[in-house]
Amino acid sequence: MCELLGMSANVPTDICFSFTGLMQRGGRTGPHRDGWGIAFYEGAGCRTFHDPTPSAESEIAKLIHRYPIKSRIVLSHIRRATHGRVCLENTHPFTRELWGRTITFAHNGKLPGIKRWPLKHYRPIGTTDSEHAFCWMLDRLRARFPRAPRSPRVLLEQIEELAATLHAVGTFNMLLSDARHLFCHCSTQLSFLTRRAPFGPAHLLDAELAVNFAQETTPGDIVTVIATRPLTADEKWTMMAPGTLQAFVDGLPIATHVARPTNTQSA
Amino acid sequence: MCELLGMSANVPTDICFSFTGLMQRGGRTGPHRDGWGIAFYEGAGCRTFHDPTPSAESEIAKLIHRYPIKSRIVLSHIRRATHGRVCLENTHPFTRELWGRTITFAHNGKLPGIKRWPLKHYRPIGTTDSEHAFCWMLDRLRARFPRAPRSPRVLLEQIEELAATLHAVGTFNMLLSDARHLFCHCSTQLSFLTRRAPFGPAHLLDAELAVNFAQETTPGDIVTVIATRPLTADEKWTMMAPGTLQAFVDGLPIATHVARPTNTQSA
Repeated sequence: MCELLGMSANVPTDICFSFTGLMQRGGRTGPHRDGWGIAFYEGAGCRTFHDPTPSAESEIAKLIHRYPIKSRIVLSHIRRATHGRVCLENTHPFTRELWGRTITFAHNGKLPGIKRWPLKHYRPIGTTDSEHAFCWMLDRLRARFPRAPRSPRVLLEQIEELAATLHAVGTFNMLLSDARHLFCHCSTQLSFLTRRAPFGPAHLLDAELAVNFAQETTPGDIVTVIATRPLTADEKWTMMAPGTLQAFVDGLPIATHVARPTNTQSA
Repeated sequence: MCELLGMSANVPTDICFSFTGLMQRGGRTGPHRDGWGIAFYEGAGCRTFHDPTPSAESEIAKLIHRYPIKSRIVLSHIRRATHGRVCLENTHPFTRELWGRTITFAHNGKLPGIKRWPLKHYRPIGTTDSEHAFCWMLDRLRARFPRAPRSPRVLLEQIEELAATLHAVGTFNMLLSDARHLFCHCSTQLSFLTRRAPFGPAHLLDAELAVNFAQETTPGDIVTVIATRPLTADEKWTMMAPGTLQAFVDGLPIATHVARPTNTQSA
């Protein structure tokens, strides 16, 4: 198992606090010693940092939690290798271009047999089952939508269908972004938390660190943090149900499934 | 004009010394204040760092020249925007996947009209003429070679042809790598230097910094550095002729043009 961390916000926000908690799980409070990576969107642009060394000891990780990069969409992953050796090309998040957008992807879980699924346009650079699944999803999205669909709901429904297919063959906890939306699929374990006014204090579970968000924010800020396991002790995290997808824009869920009232996954 | 820096080496080598010189040109000794980026290959993997702030003031640039990342192929670029606004998605080097390899690209010069050239598979994320040219090259390479050509010479000749087409419409000083080779095209200005035993001292032109490579290397090391303008005062740089391409593997030129004796561009 690996650990995922994501963020969706309506204003550029740094992820230093949550990242500090996550990084402890990379070799200190957790066993995820096989590298880590993070992607920060800034408008259409995306900055990624990857390091195959344990995050708790990484020079680059120290930079990230010292130097606040502000972003509205962030994806991060710390890895405990179960498939594919420990090296840079096997370090999440993976990125590709589709529709003139940078698509990023991070996954935890195993997908037995996925590497036999044929690919067309996108090919893996490393050897993980995760990257193969990502390429497969992109191939399907590209075939279905030669141009980006205008409706977020149409895109969400397609991603939900692809995620359900992958969930059926293994474990597929996933974060994916197209620079506009953050899609989060829970196969076994994924939680989220939305911070908005009135803001209060929070304490990390994995490090001696607390923050009072009332002092760090403005009243209109909305920030959703998504993580494999809750990162803070004193906030109310929502556990996602296995087999569900949640998508966020500007820190809030995309209002979906209007036409599908039997589905109750929205927060 | 922007400034390019590349490296090809037969052993993992850090580029801290040369990078320190280049970074001074990003707002201190040079006018290239509009961002910078660098790509480090590690086997099939590639780490990139991008920053739209001036390199001479960048926190991330400070990390790079303090923390030696060792690589056999490096590409770097500092930007003075002539086309496309200053933002992350317009910051070189650009990367895409082709043949299951990470392809990186950095360019200086202008290519008037290039953005009207049709694209098929690859689409720009930002708005620079450079990224459009990169996508066009990748489309042509993909169409010509559905799989990576086995012979470096065959690939080199195709890239040479594409570069010549771009050189004909504007200025095309370029670095491109497919994780195995480093291709360097000179349109107006590009120099290189190969360091090998016996190693000696070198002084940067842009900063008060000297290094004695005899103390930093082992006798079998071969390192070629490519830069828009020579970076050191006391070494013999080779100026490439306009309209020529040079490709390096393991620090040495690919022996090319065996069948084309009229071409004399090899070092």
